Amino acid sequence: MTSLIKSIQDIKNVIAKSAKPLALIPTMGSLHAGHISLIQTAKSECKTIIVYIFVNPLQFGPNEDFSEYPKDLASDLKTCEENNVDFVFAPEINEIYPDIESVKRNLITPPCELADILCGKTRENHFSGVATVIKRFFDIIEPDFAYFGEKDLQQLYIIKWLVKEFNLPVTVQSCPIVREHTGLAYSSRNKYLSADEKNIAASLYKALKLARGNTRSGIFPLNKAILESLIFLSHFPEIKVEYFEAKDKTNLANVHNDTKHGFYYLIAAKIKKVRLIDNIEVP
Amino acid sequence: MTSLIKSIQDIKNVIAKSAKPLALIPTMGSLHAGHISLIQTAKSECKTIIVYIFVNPLQFGPNEDFSEYPKDLASDLKTCEENNVDFVFAPEINEIYPDIESVKRNLITPPCELADILCGKTRENHFSGVATVIKRFFDIIEPDFAYFGEKDLQQLYIIKWLVKEFNLPVTVQSCPIVREHTGLAYSSRNKYLSADEKNIAASLYKALKLARGNTRSGIFPLNKAILESLIFLSHFPEIKVEYFEAKDKTNLANVHNDTKHGFYYLIAAKIKKVRLIDNIEVP
Repeated sequence: MTSLIKSIQDIKNVIAKSAKPLALIPTMGSLHAGHISLIQTAKSECKTIIVYIFVNPLQFGPNEDFSEYPKDLASDLKTCEENNVDFVFAPEINEIYPDIESVKRNLITPPCELADILCGKTRENHFSGVATVIKRFFDIIEPDFAYFGEKDLQQLYIIKWLVKEFNLPVTVQSCPIVREHTGLAYSSRNKYLSADEKNIAASLYKALKLARGNTRSGIFPLNKAILESLIFLSHFPEIKVEYFEAKDKTNLANVHNDTKHGFYYLIAAKIKKVRLIDNIEVP
Repeated sequence: MTSLIKSIQDIKNVIAKSAKPLALIPTMGSLHAGHISLIQTAKSECKTIIVYIFVNPLQFGPNEDFSEYPKDLASDLKTCEENNVDFVFAPEINEIYPDIESVKRNLITPPCELADILCGKTRENHFSGVATVIKRFFDIIEPDFAYFGEKDLQQLYIIKWLVKEFNLPVTVQSCPIVREHTGLAYSSRNKYLSADEKNIAASLYKALKLARGNTRSGIFPLNKAILESLIFLSHFPEIKVEYFEAKDKTNLANVHNDTKHGFYYLIAAKIKKVRLIDNIEVP
C-alpha cells in the first residue's frame, strides 16, 4: 500500500518509523518505464522506498515547458502502488520553497566544467536548479540511497559532484536507459509527441548507435563519426539538433581520438518544441 | 574514552555504529566552561556526543584574528575526556573545504534582517561563513541534536533560520551564558586579556544588568536605559563600544517601548583589539 504524503512534517514522521536502508527516487512525476526500473532497482537494495514527485520550477527556463509539464498524480500513484513503493512524497511548491528570496540567495552552483556544457549551454541555470532541489530533498529525507536514470547523464554527474562536494551520506545509484521498442528513450516529454513524431524521435538513438558503430570499427575518428550521424539526422527535417558531442566518462571533459577512457556520445534535439536528450556509452 | 577523529570518512564510520540520538557540539576549540555546559546538557539528552573543533576561516574578516585564534588541541581533548565526550572531530581545513572555489560559489546567505544587523554590521560575511560551516558539518554528521551557547545569540538565530530554511532534521538546543565570578561571559577570546583587562571586561555585563534594571523599574524608556549604560561604560576608557541595542526575542527586530514580547539587550565592544560580545534577556 502506497501512502501519499504532502507535507515535510509528515514525511519526516514516517521516515522516523521506517526500516533502513531508505531509498529516494527523485522525479517530476509522469512516471514511465524508466522510473519503474529505478523503483525496481531500489526495491532490490533498500527496505523503504520513497518516490518524490515535484515539478521543480527552478530548473525550467523562462521559455521552457514548466507550466505545461505533464502532470497526472492519480496515474503516478497507481504506478507506485503496482511497484510496491512505500511513500509518494508530493509536496506543493510552497512547502519546499516557502521563502523564494532565501532560495534564490542560496542556489547551489555546480562547477562550470559540469554545468555549463551540453544542456547547460542552452538551459541557463538548469543544473543549479537541479542541484538545489535535490539538495533540499536530501536535507529533508536523508536517504541512504538515491536513484537516477542514465538518460539524464549530465544530471547524474552533477548529483555525484553534489554528494562529493557536501560529503553527503547518500549512495548515488544509476540505472541504464529504458527504451521503447523503437529505441526511443522513455521520457515524460514523449507525451508531447504524436505516434509519427515518436518514430522520427527514435532516429536520435539510431544516430548514436551509428556513431558508436563507426567508432568501434575504427574507421572514423570521433569528429567524422559525429559528422556521419549528423548527416543521417539531416534526413529528418523535423529534428533540430542542439548538440552531438563526445565526452569523457570520468568527468564529461572533451575527448580526443587517443582517449584511453570510455566515453559517451550525447545528443540533444528538438522535434517541434519538444526537447529530447539521449546518450550512448562507447566502446 | 574520547576518540580523536580527523577525517570525514572516519567520523562517518563511527557514526554508523553509534547509538542515537546523536549530539553535535560545534566549536572552534579552546574549550571553556561555556562549552562544558553544552557538553553536559548534551549528555543529559543524547547517547553519543561529538564535539567538533574547527577554526572556520570563512567566518573571519581579513583584519580579524583567524591566524591568532587560540588553539590547544591537547587541552581540548583533556576537557572532552573529563566530560565523557565520545568523539572529537578535528578535521583540517582541506578536509572540509577541499575545493575552495566550490565553497565560495556555494556560501549560505542568511536573510539580511538577521545577518546584517548587530555583529553583521562590522563583521561582513561573518554569518554567511557561520551558516556555511554549520551546514557542512550538519551534512556530514546528520546530528539529531546540536548545541549552541546563548552568548553568540545572533549566531543562534542564524542557526535556527538555517534549520528552518533547509528543513533539517536536527533539533537546535541553546544553553545559557556561563560567566566567570566577575560576571564576564566565558569566551575563547578572554585568553587574549590580562587579569586587569578581564576585570574591566566584566563591566559589559554590569552595563547590561544596569539597562535591564532600569527597564524593569519602568523609569526609563529603552533608549534612555541604553544611554545610561553607555554613560556607565564611558568611565572605562579601555572599552570601545561597537553597539548596544535592544532586539525583539522573536526575530531580533528592533523593539520599541510598547513591546509585548520579551527582548534582549546586546552589546559588542573592544578592549584593545579583543572583540567581546554579551547579552541579557529582558524582562
